[in-house]
Amino acid sequence: MKIEMAKPEDRQGILAVTANIDIFTDEEKDTVRELWDDGDYDFLVAHHNGQVIGYTCFGERALTEGSYDLYWIAVDPSARRLGAGKALMRATESEVKKRSGRLIIVETSGMEKYESTRAFYLGVGYQQEAVIRDFYKPGDDLVIYTVHL
Amino acid sequence: MKIEMAKPEDRQGILAVTANIDIFTDEEKDTVRELWDDGDYDFLVAHHNGQVIGYTCFGERALTEGSYDLYWIAVDPSARRLGAGKALMRATESEVKKRSGRLIIVETSGMEKYESTRAFYLGVGYQQEAVIRDFYKPGDDLVIYTVHL
Repeated sequence: MKIEMAKPEDRQGILAVTANIDIFTDEEKDTVRELWDDGDYDFLVAHHNGQVIGYTCFGERALTEGSYDLYWIAVDPSARRLGAGKALMRATESEVKKRSGRLIIVETSGMEKYESTRAFYLGVGYQQEAVIRDFYKPGDDLVIYTVHL
Repeated sequence: MKIEMAKPEDRQGILAVTANIDIFTDEEKDTVRELWDDGDYDFLVAHHNGQVIGYTCFGERALTEGSYDLYWIAVDPSARRLGAGKALMRATESEVKKRSGRLIIVETSGMEKYESTRAFYLGVGYQQEAVIRDFYKPGDDLVIYTVHL
């Protein structure tokens, strides 16, 4: 597996992985494409056997000194045994550090279907730092994880 | 005092109030102008004797159903006795409700110079819901207030 900053030719692979993530809504899948096409966001991609098997999308938060949002992480379901999720998190942290970033913020949902996502963030060393009740919709909280680099 | 959605001719007054807020950094003042010039954000303005004396800037958070960010509130120092801050908060809540908003989120700094700002949000009925340590810069936390409408 090789992880590096995404190149224009990775667009199709990123969108193919995105399409395979059942947990993403159609609106969220459209958002990934918009973030890519905007060109203002950074993507790291993991390749395996010449295919994109996962990616992260991240960027510095406006009006902060060195705080980065991890907007998306996605790993193709067929490739999850390879440890690409953890490797992508570590590669994102390295890239953020290289840019003098100090803090990474991850926002996710408190819904049951995101339980394995939340367990993943805790498992790779992120701390739950805040909850905003009913943020996404009634009954769907925002849960904020951070890692101080 | 009259509070209503901002019109193009309010731009100058909004920027004049912004320039008078000592607590805003130059970068933050520039951000207000960018938000106005973008045209994608909503502003409510308070007028008194034909002058803009304060404003709020707000908008719906992407990927939520009815959660709104209050990005900025500013009241000219010369007009603070008029209660424009509280009136602007109430007017913003009414406007958000009119659009089927359920939740307003306010983010501010944990620094000492923002102590009166934080007291203001508590005083108008917002709850402190979360803190992200060192968010803006080392030693400068993010404090998140919410009101569930």
